[in-house]
Amino acid sequence: MNTQTLPLARRADQLVGSIIDSSTSLLAQQKHDIVRFAMGAPANEAVPTDVFREIAGSIFDSESFTYGASEGEPRLLNQLVDYLATTAEPTPAERITITAGGMQGLDLACKIFVDPGDLVAIESPTYTNGSATALSYGAELLEVPMDEDGMVVEALPDLVNEAGRTPKAIYVIPNFQNPSGTTLSVARRKRLLELAHEWNSVIIDDDPYGLLRFAGEDVGGFHSISPEDPLLFSVRTFSKILAPGLRVGWVNTDPSLRPLVISAKQAMDTCTNVPNQHIVAEFIRRGGLDEHLTGLRTEYLKRKQAMQASLDRHLGDRIRSTDPEGGFFLWVTLQGEDAQISAQSLFETGLAEGVAFIPGPALSPSGKFDDALRLCFASSSPERIEEGVQRLANAMDKELAAVQGAR
Amino acid sequence: MNTQTLPLARRADQLVGSIIDSSTSLLAQQKHDIVRFAMGAPANEAVPTDVFREIAGSIFDSESFTYGASEGEPRLLNQLVDYLATTAEPTPAERITITAGGMQGLDLACKIFVDPGDLVAIESPTYTNGSATALSYGAELLEVPMDEDGMVVEALPDLVNEAGRTPKAIYVIPNFQNPSGTTLSVARRKRLLELAHEWNSVIIDDDPYGLLRFAGEDVGGFHSISPEDPLLFSVRTFSKILAPGLRVGWVNTDPSLRPLVISAKQAMDTCTNVPNQHIVAEFIRRGGLDEHLTGLRTEYLKRKQAMQASLDRHLGDRIRSTDPEGGFFLWVTLQGEDAQISAQSLFETGLAEGVAFIPGPALSPSGKFDDALRLCFASSSPERIEEGVQRLANAMDKELAAVQGAR
Repeated sequence: MNTQTLPLARRADQLVGSIIDSSTSLLAQQKHDIVRFAMGAPANEAVPTDVFREIAGSIFDSESFTYGASEGEPRLLNQLVDYLATTAEPTPAERITITAGGMQGLDLACKIFVDPGDLVAIESPTYTNGSATALSYGAELLEVPMDEDGMVVEALPDLVNEAGRTPKAIYVIPNFQNPSGTTLSVARRKRLLELAHEWNSVIIDDDPYGLLRFAGEDVGGFHSISPEDPLLFSVRTFSKILAPGLRVGWVNTDPSLRPLVISAKQAMDTCTNVPNQHIVAEFIRRGGLDEHLTGLRTEYLKRKQAMQASLDRHLGDRIRSTDPEGGFFLWVTLQGEDAQISAQSLFETGLAEGVAFIPGPALSPSGKFDDALRLCFASSSPERIEEGVQRLANAMDKELAAVQGAR
Repeated sequence: MNTQTLPLARRADQLVGSIIDSSTSLLAQQKHDIVRFAMGAPANEAVPTDVFREIAGSIFDSESFTYGASEGEPRLLNQLVDYLATTAEPTPAERITITAGGMQGLDLACKIFVDPGDLVAIESPTYTNGSATALSYGAELLEVPMDEDGMVVEALPDLVNEAGRTPKAIYVIPNFQNPSGTTLSVARRKRLLELAHEWNSVIIDDDPYGLLRFAGEDVGGFHSISPEDPLLFSVRTFSKILAPGLRVGWVNTDPSLRPLVISAKQAMDTCTNVPNQHIVAEFIRRGGLDEHLTGLRTEYLKRKQAMQASLDRHLGDRIRSTDPEGGFFLWVTLQGEDAQISAQSLFETGLAEGVAFIPGPALSPSGKFDDALRLCFASSSPERIEEGVQRLANAMDKELAAVQGAR
């Protein structure tokens, strides 16, 4: 028996899965020491595990284990509204639906807006879990190039002309983009909003890292440019600022859309898991989130600088790298002779050497960027980063020798 | 601004939401005492809250809060495989994917099998969250009548002939069906499997209550009739046997299908929330699940009998009811003069009187059964059940008087 004889939906061909997620399982199977630059996960020591365990052990009650409201637990909604009121994106409860992490926010956006055959504009490279979700609804993807100021929005009208139709949705990660680390400039955000209104396209504004700016000036969000814009579908998560295993996030949408968001969610999972909503609510209630974020920013800046220094030391001109002002990732492009190395081939050699990263093609639906790597600096200490970059250099030496020997 | 001007997907019209889930929010807003026969949730006292809190407070570690494998946490998969080996449905790990409750199992089934316009056969009445998920993928629903032996499978070929095409999927709750409480007979299960193979239809075998049989003889599952049948997509959950707020369930599918299940899940939520998987794994590891289930069966039988006695006492011949051998629900049909009462109207009056249930039309996509109610006997003590049925009788008196006065 193979799946060919099963009565699969047509979209089954477009359920492409996630190389990023699957690397979690792959790495779990390895028995040797590996420095992990692959997953975009917070450092273990950056997760308040002890506090979460203490909270769980003291506050879980019978309400923690029964069905919750589909829109989210009242105690979390209350704490979240209060917390967001202190940030650059104050958000009233009528705009919020609690989700199973940011991924479910993307699933909801595509469920509500994307018909089979619809064009969805994405950044190139992009977070391919997001583009995979669009594909799972039958989207056709329009890859838009990026530079140091994020998506090249100026290129979008011509690309749309060539495609012969306007995009139903524009998927963008405006701050410290995954995987490139770049931030979309304010001028481009304004232009993107204009285009969205011209085309009646939804902007899927995925911003998991916005609260993790550790350098430069906060440029605000889309909402500060166009308050209450109904074409903004904003996806937020506690995964990067607290812990991804909780699977707790939220969407910030036009209030008129919220009943539809809730209906769509009820057809997905009834409600977000309740105990973790209670943990997050209590963590915020105790006032610990700001201090936690300050600590993360300090630590992640240090780690980014450590990774840049290690890359300089071990690889110098063999690579060039972006210089993010926040978030988790460096986007490293091989150059000179090393540009001949295949990032996918380097992944195998790197794994054997004891270092894991995400190869560029895994971050492009069309498999571009085989000369590039996504390196997560957030998960490892400066000492481990140094060790990992040393191993990466060893792997590159081997790959380069193999490429040159093959000629 | 209203949603009419937003670029919604065509399926938005079919995102019908869940009256069942929304009753959670509705009831939370009420300030007066209400006996809750509405949600299909375990009794608070049937959830091992203290044990869960103690487990969480002692075993949560850093692995509990980072990304988990999309197929499920290894420690839960191991415990689940060992546990299921002791049941009527032994299931190897290669068939299991951990999900966000049973609802995500249904979402996965529909994502993988249901194209827009596909026919999906459902029981009538049915668990409308399941049919809503099929609708969210553009399904057209074929409602199949039920009797005391479950779905009238003999009627299915004629209904399919009338529809002019075979069903892509057949959605069935074989044990103590939600909402009717009936169990599909073995003869009908066999016939349904034959039809599925004739038509190449998937059977979405949703069995949240199978381990909660408290009377009669265990008839086994579809898998015992047709082992390793690739057309069986089996949806399982800890929601009813442990606690729904955990949002932990699993699907049991053909191993050839598992990569596709994992890919589909990665486009939904990356992985199931990790801490609750660890709680469930530890609960099973300690060996508490069998004893827990034995306790539930004893208690739920008592509560079913209490509800039947209260219905006899207060309503006698004014209603007839099913007599389930397990699970959570009685399906009550108004008869005689009371058949004139609208269950939807009775819901409002009942709420004012202090009793909540799910009116029949909420359990039929086409709004049938306005003379019927779903009563959950599992959530309330015998004393509260007596009080609730008394209030239901009062509400019926008022509704009947209103109906008769209006003539």
